[in-house]
Amino acid sequence: MEIHPQLLADCHVLGKTESGVLLLHKNSQVLWLILVPDVLQTDLFAVEGPIRTRIFADCEKIAAIIRQWPGVEKLNFAAIGNVVPQLHLHLVGRHHADPCWPKPVWGNLPESVPYRDEVLEELKTALQTVFVNE
Amino acid sequence: MEIHPQLLADCHVLGKTESGVLLLHKNSQVLWLILVPDVLQTDLFAVEGPIRTRIFADCEKIAAIIRQWPGVEKLNFAAIGNVVPQLHLHLVGRHHADPCWPKPVWGNLPESVPYRDEVLEELKTALQTVFVNE
Repeated sequence: MEIHPQLLADCHVLGKTESGVLLLHKNSQVLWLILVPDVLQTDLFAVEGPIRTRIFADCEKIAAIIRQWPGVEKLNFAAIGNVVPQLHLHLVGRHHADPCWPKPVWGNLPESVPYRDEVLEELKTALQTVFVNE
Repeated sequence: MEIHPQLLADCHVLGKTESGVLLLHKNSQVLWLILVPDVLQTDLFAVEGPIRTRIFADCEKIAAIIRQWPGVEKLNFAAIGNVVPQLHLHLVGRHHADPCWPKPVWGNLPESVPYRDEVLEELKTALQTVFVNE
């Protein structure tokens, strides 16, 4: 499947899931995962029932892993897509000391701090039950 | 069910749905509905499957009505809850000429413009298939 160039510019590609492709926002200041379902619809609730069920099953698994990540206190979930029309679902781990708490992350993170390679690998390991073989 | 006082301060209460209570944000500059499911969990994906299915069925109906509302081009959906911990789901109708496009509505709407009574009534009529008798 094709992924919008803005998402590819902003994110690391982590891997393929049952419903699409899982990305990680390059700004490590919050744990910000983005699921890009393999669908043509741009609105989440316009996706047909069985496919939406598969998308939400992925979200449930990803959300559970985010909540177990050290320091995460709260999960933020959103489908916005005003800038990038391709449907993409934000799953963001938040905590009271993160750089834009309690504001939402969109437009409010002051600067981008890259991930260290070993943290990227730890994240991929933590998320391995979400990925499918290509 | 009890609704957090901050939500009651910010919103009109429209009515009871299969999964909870539907609110309308008092700022009429965007069509901003908020579904408050009758659950104790604060994270959407921590809600058990069958109850979540009922919540999403409500969201699907509400989303379809928002998309048919004059001027709406895009639906934004989010569960954030960093300020108000009670689970509440934002369903927001957006368009290119609204006051904070393409930014998300949270923290970006410049001023609150109240609804006229007749628009409130039109909205309740448009949403009537979402409500259940109390």
